Parts: sequence; C-alpha cells; structure tokens
Amino acid sequence: MSSFTTNARIASFGGRIYKLTHQSTSTGTPMAVNVFLPPQALSSSQKVPVLFFLSGLTCTPENCTDKGFFHAAASRRGMAVVWPDTSPRGLNLPGEKDSWDFGEGASFYVDAVREPFAKGYKMESYVAKELPATLFGDAEFGKYLDKERVSIAGHSMGGHGALTLYLKYPGMFKSCSAFSPISNPSQCPWGEKAFRGYLGEDKEEWKKHDATELVKGFKGEGGDLKILIDVGTGDNFYKQGQLLPENFEKAVKDAGLKGAEVRYQEDYDHSYYFISTFAEDHVKHAAKHLGV
Amino acid sequence: MSSFTTNARIASFGGRIYKLTHQSTSTGTPMAVNVFLPPQALSSSQKVPVLFFLSGLTCTPENCTDKGFFHAAASRRGMAVVWPDTSPRGLNLPGEKDSWDFGEGASFYVDAVREPFAKGYKMESYVAKELPATLFGDAEFGKYLDKERVSIAGHSMGGHGALTLYLKYPGMFKSCSAFSPISNPSQCPWGEKAFRGYLGEDKEEWKKHDATELVKGFKGEGGDLKILIDVGTGDNFYKQGQLLPENFEKAVKDAGLKGAEVRYQEDYDHSYYFISTFAEDHVKHAAKHLGV
Repeated sequence: MSSFTTNARIASFGGRIYKLTHQSTSTGTPMAVNVFLPPQALSSSQKVPVLFFLSGLTCTPENCTDKGFFHAAASRRGMAVVWPDTSPRGLNLPGEKDSWDFGEGASFYVDAVREPFAKGYKMESYVAKELPATLFGDAEFGKYLDKERVSIAGHSMGGHGALTLYLKYPGMFKSCSAFSPISNPSQCPWGEKAFRGYLGEDKEEWKKHDATELVKGFKGEGGDLKILIDVGTGDNFYKQGQLLPENFEKAVKDAGLKGAEVRYQEDYDHSYYFISTFAEDHVKHAAKHLGV
Repeated sequence: MSSFTTNARIASFGGRIYKLTHQSTSTGTPMAVNVFLPPQALSSSQKVPVLFFLSGLTCTPENCTDKGFFHAAASRRGMAVVWPDTSPRGLNLPGEKDSWDFGEGASFYVDAVREPFAKGYKMESYVAKELPATLFGDAEFGKYLDKERVSIAGHSMGGHGALTLYLKYPGMFKSCSAFSPISNPSQCPWGEKAFRGYLGEDKEEWKKHDATELVKGFKGEGGDLKILIDVGTGDNFYKQGQLLPENFEKAVKDAGLKGAEVRYQEDYDHSYYFISTFAEDHVKHAAKHLGV
C-alpha cells in the first residue's frame, strides 16, 4: 500500500503529474508533494532518474509545478520531477505565520533546534532522508524511480536548500543547480533572520548550513562540483544583497574547486518567468550527470 | 504616447512580457492585457505576427501568461502573444459577481444587449476591434506588431470566443485554434445561461454567436477553415456536455467544409496542464498560416 494519498492525477506532456500528501515523521504533519512521472516511466519497466526541485519563500509545491515548466523538459528526457513543500504546515506554532520570510513557507531546509520551531521544522531530514526513502520504497511510486540517479535543484531559498544538501550529502545527488540562490545566508538579512530563529545565535552553527561556507571544505566526487547557477541581473533581491552569488563563486575559486558555473542572465528577474526560461538548461545539466 | 500603462516588463524566453492596462471605450473601464514580444521583435525592425489568446471562465490575463507556456513556443518562432482579459472589471453591475460562469470573468466575448450588461459588456467589440486597433496603432507597441498577420486561439469560453470571432470576421484572423472550446453554446448549460443573460430570450440571436451555427454559413477564405481543436477525453466539462465538439465537427462536415481538425487527447483534463502540453502545436498551427 502506498504511503501517499493521491489527490490528483493529471495528464501533462505525455506523462502524469501526481498531487500527493503523506504523513511525515520528520515534521509530524501531513506534507504535500507533487511528482511528475515522464512517459518513459509509464511505458517501460525501466526506472527513471529523478530531479528534486526545492521552491523558494512562500511557495507550495503548486507554484513550480504550475509555472516552472521543468516537466516539459523532463518529459523529453525521461526524468521524473519531485516538488516538495517549503515547510510543514498546520503546526500552529507561536510566530509561525507572522512573516512571509520566516516560519510557514520559509523553512530554509534546515533542522531547527530552537524552540518552538524545533518541533516540526525538520526540513533537512525531510527532504534529504525521509521523502526520498518514502518515495523510493513506495509500493506505488518506487517502481518508477531510480534511487541511484538523483539530482537536486531549487530557487532562491530552495536554491540555498539545493546547494547545501548537495554539499552536505556528497554522492547522494549527482548534480545540483539553482536559480537565484541565497548563496551565503549567514551574510544576508533573509538568512540571518532564519538562522537566528531556527538555529540560535551561534554563528559557527550557521556555517554548517551556508553553501559559501560548506563549499570550502567540499571533498566529495573527487573534489569536482557539478553545479549550475543562474542569476538574473534584473533581480531586485540580487541587487539588495540577499543572494550574494559572488561570495559563493569566490569561495569555490579560493578552494581550488572546479565544476561550478555561475551565469548572470541579463535583465531577468526573480520570478517563474525567469525560471521557466532556463528550466530546460537545468534539466539538461541534471541529465548529463544522470546519464540520460 | 502609448495608450497603455506598463505595470511590469519582464524578461522571459529571450523576449519580454508586458503587463499592461489601458482605458477601453468599448467597456468604459480600464482593461488589463498582457503582451509577449519575442526576441525577434526586439532585435530587428521587422514586424512580427501576433497570436491573440482568449482565456476561459474566471481567468484574468495572468493565468495563461503564467501557465499556458505559449510564449516559450512563440519565442522560437518569432511570434507575439496577446492575452486579453475575459470581461470588464469594476463596473459593479447588479448580479455581475453572483456566479463564476456569468458576469465578471465570464463575458463570453459577445456584445451584450440586455441590461444591465449592455453597459460595458462589449467584449466582442473590444477583442475584435478596439484592442487590435489600439495595439497596432500604438506609439510604443505598434512598431513591433504586424497587423496583417494575426491569428486567434483560446480555451473553453475563450475557445468559443476564438472560433466565433474567426468565423464572424473572415480574413481578419489567418487561423484559429482552441482548447476544449464551448463549441455549441446554444445547447449547453454554460452557454444558455450566458446568452440568456447577455442577449435575451431570442434563440435566433444566439445562433449569431455560436460556432456550430456560424460555421454552417462560412464562406471566407475560399471556404477552407484553418482550425485546430484539442479536447481532452478526461475533461469533466466535456463529459458533462458543456463543450460539444462533436456538434461542431458534424456541422463542418454537413457544410462540406475542409480544414477543421478536432483531436481528442486521451486522459487530458480541462486545465493548463493540458493547454501547456499542446501549446506548441497551436503555435505551430498559427505559424503555418502566418508564414513563419
């Protein structure tokens, strides 16, 4: 029996989008997650590779499923896409809904240690451990998904999530890509607020969840990164210093690492109009490292 | 000076999405409209062909701009896309907001004659006359758009709009395509409610706004239609008899007309997940008849 309740099963681009919920032990709540199975998964007994996409502040799984168009490109390459939610919902913790950049819809994909968020805000465990294990072992979905060929991508806060999980769990994700990632959260207002609220005041702890800090010690995959980053030069959050991709670039360079490409896309903003434009490039990047 | 106020100008797929408003004389209200200019329009002095897309019940210009993905395909072919709104807004007429399938967001693209909707619900005049004239003559946008190469498409109520305007104004639109169109509104609950409310009880009047009736007398373009229709077999509104594409097919056949292809897409529903899947086919269909 599947761990997932299928709330909708929708034909799209020759495959199917599933809108699912399941009970999470990490968060103690029901979690929403959308999954695209490409036509190749449905028409053969061969398992397909999987791209996890982590969304940004305020998003649910719906935003990127509707507007990111990853599944258009993934359909052509026989890749599944998994869109998790951005936080637990319904915990009703004090302060959880006070701001759009902290709490509900804004987990920053860390395991919170500070109360009250330590109760349930365990999104690193959820995304990196529980959700993959549940999907790959699932009676309904496991047979389609190749747990050995998994990549990760994300946008903004989800770009931070994708980069940090890629760096923290070497080998688990064969590649990583990000749109407008919060690349150095310890040094920007969004990240400082979130890390203080979820992790506390100890800035040494923050470094364990900051891509620019983590990359300095990266030893996985023979030291070669497989990272693609796109940032729009018209992105107001980039201009305001929330993203700081240059800090990440410098850390990569200083560490003598190869394989991280950062592209600055003229005039593009922070929206899904930007993401959808380059979604195919990100699917191609993943496909190259997933052997499809 | 442009007739349009540019509320947003967003880079996407190498071109730009403009989110505009302008004061309409047809409706007596400000009207929202989104426009995509492809890279080819911005980088050369040659005017590009234009695809108008009419949305369905409840939609604003945002829904299809966000989720229809027409501009991805239009970008590759050097085509502009124009997404008008589905009704005037803000008239505050009695009954205008009582239901989701009549009144605001549900104009059916006719010129209402019945009060109170005769005041302002002149969406046929707006879409077929005022908006094209305003765009093509505009100081800012006119220079990009080729008024001699225009096609029309739409979804559901907007599919009805696209088909009827194509048939009513022979030669104005070089081709027409529709997703899940309300193909015989005189014979379905949605259409009956709308036509009664906008046009009155005289069913002979209804026939002038019903694609299945209009096609019987079609004489334009040497009698050849240039119509592509996609309908999903999993579409609940299709199953409930709101769309009736078979009636349109039969009328085309009985009239001895050629050039109307109706495709039934297995398992697809009424949503933008369906539209976006086949948006490229509809852009190709328009491109063929627009010479790009």
